Amino acid sequence: MTYAQAAGIPPVTDDEIFQAHQDGKLSVAAARPISQARDLSIAYTPGVAKVSRAIAEDAALARRYTWAGRLVAVVSDGTAVLGLGDIGASASLPVMEGKSVLFKTFAGLNSIPLVLNTTDVDEIVETLVRLRSSFGAINLEDIAAPRCFELEEKLVQALDCPVMHDDQHGTAIVTLAALRGANLVLGRDIAEQRVVISGAGAAGVACAKILAEAGVGDVTVLDSRGIIHAGREGLNPVKEKLAETTNSSGLRGGLAEALRGADVFLGLSSVTIDETLLGEMAADPIVFALSNPDPEVHPEVAARYAPIVATGRSDFPNQINNVLAFPGVFRGALDAGARQITENMKLAAAEAIFAVAKDDLGPDRIVPSPFDPRVAPEVAAAVAKAAVEDGVTG
Amino acid sequence: MTYAQAAGIPPVTDDEIFQAHQDGKLSVAAARPISQARDLSIAYTPGVAKVSRAIAEDAALARRYTWAGRLVAVVSDGTAVLGLGDIGASASLPVMEGKSVLFKTFAGLNSIPLVLNTTDVDEIVETLVRLRSSFGAINLEDIAAPRCFELEEKLVQALDCPVMHDDQHGTAIVTLAALRGANLVLGRDIAEQRVVISGAGAAGVACAKILAEAGVGDVTVLDSRGIIHAGREGLNPVKEKLAETTNSSGLRGGLAEALRGADVFLGLSSVTIDETLLGEMAADPIVFALSNPDPEVHPEVAARYAPIVATGRSDFPNQINNVLAFPGVFRGALDAGARQITENMKLAAAEAIFAVAKDDLGPDRIVPSPFDPRVAPEVAAAVAKAAVEDGVTG
Repeated sequence: MTYAQAAGIPPVTDDEIFQAHQDGKLSVAAARPISQARDLSIAYTPGVAKVSRAIAEDAALARRYTWAGRLVAVVSDGTAVLGLGDIGASASLPVMEGKSVLFKTFAGLNSIPLVLNTTDVDEIVETLVRLRSSFGAINLEDIAAPRCFELEEKLVQALDCPVMHDDQHGTAIVTLAALRGANLVLGRDIAEQRVVISGAGAAGVACAKILAEAGVGDVTVLDSRGIIHAGREGLNPVKEKLAETTNSSGLRGGLAEALRGADVFLGLSSVTIDETLLGEMAADPIVFALSNPDPEVHPEVAARYAPIVATGRSDFPNQINNVLAFPGVFRGALDAGARQITENMKLAAAEAIFAVAKDDLGPDRIVPSPFDPRVAPEVAAAVAKAAVEDGVTG
Repeated sequence: MTYAQAAGIPPVTDDEIFQAHQDGKLSVAAARPISQARDLSIAYTPGVAKVSRAIAEDAALARRYTWAGRLVAVVSDGTAVLGLGDIGASASLPVMEGKSVLFKTFAGLNSIPLVLNTTDVDEIVETLVRLRSSFGAINLEDIAAPRCFELEEKLVQALDCPVMHDDQHGTAIVTLAALRGANLVLGRDIAEQRVVISGAGAAGVACAKILAEAGVGDVTVLDSRGIIHAGREGLNPVKEKLAETTNSSGLRGGLAEALRGADVFLGLSSVTIDETLLGEMAADPIVFALSNPDPEVHPEVAARYAPIVATGRSDFPNQINNVLAFPGVFRGALDAGARQITENMKLAAAEAIFAVAKDDLGPDRIVPSPFDPRVAPEVAAAVAKAAVEDGVTG
């Protein structure tokens, strides 16, 4: 039984889902209504010419007098959509529309989905460079690893605006916040923990990075071939770097070897794990089984071994959901006029999410609810402050 | 004194204009609100996965379950913006936002501006082909001639959705409707008229074409070097074609030669004309001085010679404004599921605009008001019908 069922929330039917998607989920409206000829001559000709001329004379005014400066483009090539994989641009669009809905709902930001019928990194970069004046930030979404790493890096280089691949960094930020919450509940220190990450895709790689930055004692990452370690053959450049920066004790083998004595399991692949492995972990471990829609281990099973269990699902407690991060991260970056999203801005976001929940934590409440109205503003403020501190604004 | 001043409408101030453009003119909202976890699990994970999977299995469902099928992208490279010329993508954005506002206001269509930092025709085509799944139609806007002709042609070839350069065809459609209205008022036959078009840019070329299609007796087109005629040296391919299809009497020279005995003057350049030339036209001529913001001849001056005068301005009577055409044209094309916008669809749009005004025409009312609520639905219905007749739907 799910948490939602236990709480008496009626299950969502397919009919309901398809009806809610009829004609899509977004609507563009005039920020100010047009109801008479006078409105037309302000918003359109001849009035608009004055605004266009002003921007032509001073490019910086575009930020003030167009919507682009604060518009988030949600960009995908549809190669790694939810649990569905490479379903293409058009089929990914409902997810991107959903993301745009969340940007408005949680951070008051305008957002449009742009889906691309190419998976070539340089073509995607080129396309977005050409469109640069149309938006103010890019949320990359559902782009397969390892291409997503190269794409994000090239876009950050090519564009003078915030760019973030949410599957990487949104997940990493919320996971770090949740781990801080879990440790506070259990009275433990992040610096003394060994975290095992199952999955070396977008989320796995970014989580390994942010956990190291946050001072986690040790991180071990596994891909489908087992533990990633220095000297393993056939590693791509991203995994080679992981091998250098993680697994300081040089573990080899598979999940069994990795989990033995580990403090935290972080599931970011769709690999099901055998519950007995949880029994081999350190006493009272932390289990984050984040695969969607099917967690690596059912949370009720995991709870037999672990005092704190989290999933990515809204129908169980402790939902580790990117929506806690990305709206506030982009809002803060845009509020500050940031040219990029730095590591410090991500760490500040995680700390802000954790701080919101801090006074009201419990084994079933290690992160705030996505609907906690404090989250996005607090994250935005912290991110904007970090942007200023990092000197990436203006 | 303008018509607006005479009517006591207070003039628009610069402050008002810039205030109305603060943060841009568009807002994206959720079509259905998200207020609780259950809404999230419908619009986002896990619910959205069902919709994405359905589209992956049947691509045609994208039209039904995403916003893209009915979304108009307003696309510009900022090379021919209003009377401002080549001011670039960013400075053109307020105009494109205004256009998107009009699509929603007059036709209920969602629309987003996409401005491009390239003026290379093939690069623009390539960019839009890559983004094809993101929208359902393209309104090209403010792109300089002669590149606009090549761009529109290549896009129509490359994309299976409605594409229309509004500066060409929107203007042409409304001009034809207005000429039909003027002729009805004056009791004249379009087939017996000689029309002189000053300007061989986007609008001039398209007007020449649609007037010929509508059966106007003869059309003479002038560019900055004078009358376009067969055998004139240095004509680009577009003007060469114009030379073949217009000016059947083989006129040569400038405006004086062209206007002598002509029935209709159609100003589509920013060249000021000497009022005495109007005295050389046929008796009681029709004068459409459409340059914005400064008509080729002031309408009050033109009125001394012509019983019917029209401009492009909202503060004089007989405003020949594209907003009478493009919202309904795109709405009709999208309603019908048209793969392109044919000449018949444009002619049907002109006829529908004319038909709305038909029973209430006068020398100062040759076209309906842009705020006449009958216009867009009538245009849309006529365009959709023509699309079906032309077999370009489905």
